[in-house]
Amino acid sequence: MDSLKRSPIKSIVGPNNGDLQFVGRRVLVGGWVKSFHVRPKKEVVIDSGGADVAPRDLKCAESLFLRFPLFRCIVKVLSPGVHPVGEKLEAVMEKKMEGTAYIRINDGSCVNNFQIVLDSDVHPLEQVTAIGTSVLLEGIIEKAQTEGKYTIELKADKVLHVGLVNPVKYPLSKPRLSFEAIRVYPHFRARTTTVASVMRIRSALICSTHKFFQENNFQQVTMPIITTTPTKDHTAFHITQLISNSTHDKTPDDGVTLEGVQAAIQEKTKRIEELKRSNSNKEAVFTAEQDLKAANEIAQKLEKEKKMEKAVKADFSKDYFGREAYLSVDAGLHLESYACALGAVYHFGPVFRPVEHHLNKSLAETWVVSTEQVFAELECAMKCAEDCLKSLSNSILTACPDDVKFLSTRFDNKCMDRIQAVLPEGTFPRVSYTEAVEALEKASGTTFQTKVEWGITLSDEHQRYLADELHNKPIIVYNYPKDLKPFYSRLNDDTKTVSAFDVILPKVGTVVSGIQKEERNYMISSRIKEVGLAEEQFDWYLDLRRHGTVKHAGFQINFDQLVMFLTGFGDIRDVVPYPRTKNDAKC
Amino acid sequence: MDSLKRSPIKSIVGPNNGDLQFVGRRVLVGGWVKSFHVRPKKEVVIDSGGADVAPRDLKCAESLFLRFPLFRCIVKVLSPGVHPVGEKLEAVMEKKMEGTAYIRINDGSCVNNFQIVLDSDVHPLEQVTAIGTSVLLEGIIEKAQTEGKYTIELKADKVLHVGLVNPVKYPLSKPRLSFEAIRVYPHFRARTTTVASVMRIRSALICSTHKFFQENNFQQVTMPIITTTPTKDHTAFHITQLISNSTHDKTPDDGVTLEGVQAAIQEKTKRIEELKRSNSNKEAVFTAEQDLKAANEIAQKLEKEKKMEKAVKADFSKDYFGREAYLSVDAGLHLESYACALGAVYHFGPVFRPVEHHLNKSLAETWVVSTEQVFAELECAMKCAEDCLKSLSNSILTACPDDVKFLSTRFDNKCMDRIQAVLPEGTFPRVSYTEAVEALEKASGTTFQTKVEWGITLSDEHQRYLADELHNKPIIVYNYPKDLKPFYSRLNDDTKTVSAFDVILPKVGTVVSGIQKEERNYMISSRIKEVGLAEEQFDWYLDLRRHGTVKHAGFQINFDQLVMFLTGFGDIRDVVPYPRTKNDAKC
Repeated sequence: MDSLKRSPIKSIVGPNNGDLQFVGRRVLVGGWVKSFHVRPKKEVVIDSGGADVAPRDLKCAESLFLRFPLFRCIVKVLSPGVHPVGEKLEAVMEKKMEGTAYIRINDGSCVNNFQIVLDSDVHPLEQVTAIGTSVLLEGIIEKAQTEGKYTIELKADKVLHVGLVNPVKYPLSKPRLSFEAIRVYPHFRARTTTVASVMRIRSALICSTHKFFQENNFQQVTMPIITTTPTKDHTAFHITQLISNSTHDKTPDDGVTLEGVQAAIQEKTKRIEELKRSNSNKEAVFTAEQDLKAANEIAQKLEKEKKMEKAVKADFSKDYFGREAYLSVDAGLHLESYACALGAVYHFGPVFRPVEHHLNKSLAETWVVSTEQVFAELECAMKCAEDCLKSLSNSILTACPDDVKFLSTRFDNKCMDRIQAVLPEGTFPRVSYTEAVEALEKASGTTFQTKVEWGITLSDEHQRYLADELHNKPIIVYNYPKDLKPFYSRLNDDTKTVSAFDVILPKVGTVVSGIQKEERNYMISSRIKEVGLAEEQFDWYLDLRRHGTVKHAGFQINFDQLVMFLTGFGDIRDVVPYPRTKNDAKC
Repeated sequence: MDSLKRSPIKSIVGPNNGDLQFVGRRVLVGGWVKSFHVRPKKEVVIDSGGADVAPRDLKCAESLFLRFPLFRCIVKVLSPGVHPVGEKLEAVMEKKMEGTAYIRINDGSCVNNFQIVLDSDVHPLEQVTAIGTSVLLEGIIEKAQTEGKYTIELKADKVLHVGLVNPVKYPLSKPRLSFEAIRVYPHFRARTTTVASVMRIRSALICSTHKFFQENNFQQVTMPIITTTPTKDHTAFHITQLISNSTHDKTPDDGVTLEGVQAAIQEKTKRIEELKRSNSNKEAVFTAEQDLKAANEIAQKLEKEKKMEKAVKADFSKDYFGREAYLSVDAGLHLESYACALGAVYHFGPVFRPVEHHLNKSLAETWVVSTEQVFAELECAMKCAEDCLKSLSNSILTACPDDVKFLSTRFDNKCMDRIQAVLPEGTFPRVSYTEAVEALEKASGTTFQTKVEWGITLSDEHQRYLADELHNKPIIVYNYPKDLKPFYSRLNDDTKTVSAFDVILPKVGTVVSGIQKEERNYMISSRIKEVGLAEEQFDWYLDLRRHGTVKHAGFQINFDQLVMFLTGFGDIRDVVPYPRTKNDAKC
């Protein structure tokens, strides 16, 4: 086996299911069986359920049994030992098949499968005719024998590798599984055509992101995931090495204090002396001494605990980093420092939030594109965000036309419309927060669950009204009330709003958020106090304002949500390889 | 101010410190002051220490005082209130300067500075003549008045922004600070020419990485940072939300058990009954009752603790993910699942290890490029790793020639040699582990601290001998003893070695490690047992071998170490924006 010579299926079938120019060429191909049918030398045609050739001599139950492993499984469980149909058919599966197998394989390089024609004289067909089986074969490309979907096919003459599948146990044996069903198998689900398409689009989008920022003279910097700068609400995940030793909860206050016991010991000691002095009986002295002993034991125990408590209060100093450390919820603060050195920078990496409620579009671990530019105000960030979104949306049309087409025909026919809506020339409508609230107040025929008034967070329903109904395209809402945005947002002259914006996309809502940062030292100091943060923990951040401060602005793209928007998926878990949500972190 | 029109300095000065074709053009530029000198209308020339014009009317102490803020600071501290020189000079600094300032600024877009000529009639010079001051200016490009380093300069006629610096407090006021000194200021150090150069090279390398894999038909997949699959040695960082409530260490065994106390209570109760029966004196009964009370208190306390202990044992089920979760030490396992669906995949992201000893080349958080290809054996991974290294090394020569030149002239003159050594045609020498050990055993004139024998880990000294002395170029060592590589390495037919390799680079050692994964289900199951891992925790991973298994191989590039190699830095902390090591996680 020489993998260097293997031809990716994409290079053979191309966008049009193959080209006759390849006929006669000898190739090595590999992949996983997606569907098959067998044309026997004499007897039955066995197919995988997706084929166009109907079985000839099988009854309904038999056909079901053969097509659906789950059915086979149920029959087995319900009637153990008594499943003649099963036995008969399993015997069919296991017995040597004589004939020709038409096997559609896919290697993940593109949407389209490649049809392999394999004769039982070349390889035992029963080994390669289960969905999910991996094969590596050599052969000559021929014109397809039957007209239809495939223009060309591979007449295989050598089977170099087979990775068997037990159809009863393999979770993807059934065709057309729901997204919920395959979500349970994050390690397998990219083998389905739909998830594979999403992942290829995702990959192309990552590349386009880098391309866009490089072409616009941004430097990529890798910002830390581990941070010691706290968040306002202290909700970040802790990173620690202490927890394996921390198996005790804080002892609740049960009224027994060391001071109390120590006072009791003094009293008890006195009492024993008194008893001894007064020549009390031995019993009383003995009991009192036992009492003292017990009190001493309690005192020792409490003393130890107090030490422990101290050690634990000092625990973080004994932790790996010698202080509290968290998973980054936002690369923005660190990124500012690099913008104030390299000019224009971006970072592509994950951020982490212990999201309490899964709203179909938030994960505990989400990839984010963060950018920052110096000598820049809000307008600059808005323009850049818009250009970026347009460039990225456009890029997948050229990079993955087949995948976009597949998703829009098979799964979400508005996919293309949404992508097109981002593309036109001209800027996205820009609406100040105040104007947006006014528009919502005027909204006739629509009642919102949350009462609309200046100062509220624009919820999903408000965003939907503005972007989907009122404008029917992406819009930018800017100049938000200061309480709705982070402390480092630049205060506008009205002292009520800050220079911040959101790009609201139809269907998914806010996917991009931007902020012009507060560059004035006295302003940011007072804002830190105002929101109740400890100024000393932001000393390094304030340094950027103390020494050579500049106006700077940037934005963040929630990358996973952008993939949702462009692919049309309704649940963020389906566009992320290994999604992490509360109580759910498989593998 | 319109930042959209700002010209990056790179676009003006280019690689040759400016081009006369730009003369006469009006531009807006911004940046931070790197050095300056002032030509007064009548009196003193004030310079920043880097200028070629010597002060005329200042004595040595005065000159020191002016050039070095720290000196100014020391004088102030040592003789508070009595610093006539200081007062005089601070007065000079603070008093209105009349004349022309020649200010070299840099905006991080390139190595070279841009010289600004600013007259005191346009803007108060004392505001813009401190190192680190940020300025945004408009003016017309002119031919440089004096011949020398600069071909062109900017005759500024408008100052749009100034971000002041207090030279006494700004840590980068002193020229030529050591790497150790600036490491304390990770938020500032990219403003130094050297660190900025490294960060630009780093950025270019990231881009080249994506380009290489995209061109070779790899899909990029973002693998999870949060994982619930444990490591062999359980050394991963824990991710938790429980720690803020876990402020107690495990109570050490102090001999006081609940059972013991309960038995004592029974006895004490009996004893009181006896005392009462035997009409003992009231004192004895009272003391005994006190004793019983104390014992009951202890029992209650212990009972509560036992409950606590139970709750804490169940703690991880109450943690955010409902189970133990860790920071990923290796994206490889998850990546395999995506390779077995998409064919050829890569991931660029951070991995985390609580490294106990800082060896100048290991961090707790390190960015890694991980790749995996199916239908691939070791040879395929070795070839790809080699091609990738060559491509990346070559790319920085074209993407950042100025930065590479700057680092090699200013800092490490062997930088270019090392890059060139990677480039030649032909493959890196390939040496099996066994051959490598034989070569080390034969090494004459070299004694190693670790005794050389088959089975040892090749330490730094061995790697240096092989790559730097014996071959004087990058080498690949392959087929390692199985105990030196992870359990998922494919066992060779000799049953002693596994299909794994390391690319060892001169000066830095192993930067790339590759493995052909064990694809045989029975083999990997037995290996998991052999190394003492719990098979059930790897059930999902074994699934990949159970259903449609294929041969697959991949490699990992320690990206931060690669940057070290290409830039010539000796300490990994200097090539990473915010390095994380034991007891050190600033910001």
